[in-house]
Amino acid sequence: MQFNLNNYIKVKKEVIDKELLNIISSSDNNYGDLQRSMLYSINAGGKRLRPILCLASCEALGSDSAKAIPVACGIEMIHTYSLIHDDLPSMDDDSLRRGKPTNHNVFGEATAILTGDALLADAFYIISKSILDNRISSMTGIELINDVSYAAGSRGMVGGQVLDLYLEGSDTIDIKKVEEMHLLKTGALITCSVMAGARIGGANTNELESFKKFAQCIGLAYQIMDDLLDIEGNDDLGKEIGVDKKKKKVTYPSIAGHEESKRKIEELTNYALSEITRFNNSALPLKLISKYLVERKN
Amino acid sequence: MQFNLNNYIKVKKEVIDKELLNIISSSDNNYGDLQRSMLYSINAGGKRLRPILCLASCEALGSDSAKAIPVACGIEMIHTYSLIHDDLPSMDDDSLRRGKPTNHNVFGEATAILTGDALLADAFYIISKSILDNRISSMTGIELINDVSYAAGSRGMVGGQVLDLYLEGSDTIDIKKVEEMHLLKTGALITCSVMAGARIGGANTNELESFKKFAQCIGLAYQIMDDLLDIEGNDDLGKEIGVDKKKKKVTYPSIAGHEESKRKIEELTNYALSEITRFNNSALPLKLISKYLVERKN
Repeated sequence: MQFNLNNYIKVKKEVIDKELLNIISSSDNNYGDLQRSMLYSINAGGKRLRPILCLASCEALGSDSAKAIPVACGIEMIHTYSLIHDDLPSMDDDSLRRGKPTNHNVFGEATAILTGDALLADAFYIISKSILDNRISSMTGIELINDVSYAAGSRGMVGGQVLDLYLEGSDTIDIKKVEEMHLLKTGALITCSVMAGARIGGANTNELESFKKFAQCIGLAYQIMDDLLDIEGNDDLGKEIGVDKKKKKVTYPSIAGHEESKRKIEELTNYALSEITRFNNSALPLKLISKYLVERKN
Repeated sequence: MQFNLNNYIKVKKEVIDKELLNIISSSDNNYGDLQRSMLYSINAGGKRLRPILCLASCEALGSDSAKAIPVACGIEMIHTYSLIHDDLPSMDDDSLRRGKPTNHNVFGEATAILTGDALLADAFYIISKSILDNRISSMTGIELINDVSYAAGSRGMVGGQVLDLYLEGSDTIDIKKVEEMHLLKTGALITCSVMAGARIGGANTNELESFKKFAQCIGLAYQIMDDLLDIEGNDDLGKEIGVDKKKKKVTYPSIAGHEESKRKIEELTNYALSEITRFNNSALPLKLISKYLVERKN
């Protein structure tokens, strides 16, 4: 039977959606809007790219990805927290996200900030709990918690968001700075999703290094593609087209141009795939997902 | 030689201050104000209650507390993050904290939110790194990361802040709800500070249970004392006196009255001390700290 990527993505997304619903519902805070607000943003139509990459990386090593599900969900919770905080009035001041009102537009700023805070802290609770439940060895658990917290904090996503805000106010911008910003802001969490899956799948040091290089390349390619789609426009994106330009957001295409951006995406994707060629059939989903990411229209 | 509590607290505080400076300085983010902002709030005059309780709990079991220092610092980073976010305009809208301008008043709202986010995520990075460095076994490490993330998230501090904001808008308030709010908002992190120290000190299940009860009681007693000091006033508090009343903050004294609050503090402290009586001499600092906390004037 031939492998069907769309079906693979659909099945994995259902598994992740179901587990995320269980996780958020299990935190029975009865006051205010906290739980409703967490559910609202978790269910706001995310593609579940990071958790799917985590599961596919685990499977690429021939391992059953079921034990990686809580970790994959924890990473998606961190991604969701970052979107809620990035959208706040004092940050990007966005009113729409994936075609829906942003969290603070529905629940107010205080609840939006607290919802992000809760998702970030709860992610580490869910991840550490799955290790206590013996799904993953405690040593692997500590290593991946170290990766995930590195990616989420000042050395990763937060550092990237600070650099993004800094570049918006700059006059002269070097393409290397834009790459650095993307590697931190988007790349860090994508990289640790892949690394977490690989660690849970039992990767050795050499294999981990390959997964890391693979992930850094597809993370950057994915972000450049996202910025191209913002310029070219597509209704399916669920946000206003040309938003980046209006906001004077610094993006790869805005500095390097359309053609160079397309070339860079191809180069990065080829390099990424060369790093995981040796994993053969078990890595087929991971290989196809990375191609799909840079050929998508939304 | 007689034990000198003031000297003990001074020495521990210096150790923690020095390590926190190392930790924040090691995250070399060169753009924007992130690192300066993190340092500003970390150095804004905290008593280091939580890390000192963590170290003293470790020592109460006859263990060297040096290996607990990074974990103690991680907990202080989480405490600092929560103060920065609580002070934001959309939350408590405070302009002073410990006599200094609040973070968002110095660095702006966007940087204040990101600084809190970074401190929260980086705390788990520092804690997990100290476990990878073999200071603590990975099993103990996972258990304490589970405790800390439980305390920081929707089941702990964030839940408590949501309940606090909810109670502000309520007409009738039950003293049990106020206790619940304090147990979540202040008590959860104090409890996990003590538990983390006890875990690192090698506590067995029975001992852990005693440390937990001890910590929950002194956490609540500490918060009631804080609220009494807000009413009675003292310049050393470094904040405007009577702020809680002005803001219609719901506190234990505002519901139960002054005398009942004093009685409750005494009852809680006695109960707390009874839980750790059996630890003898090694627990002397911990015992004296808990008395000091409820007899303090600031």
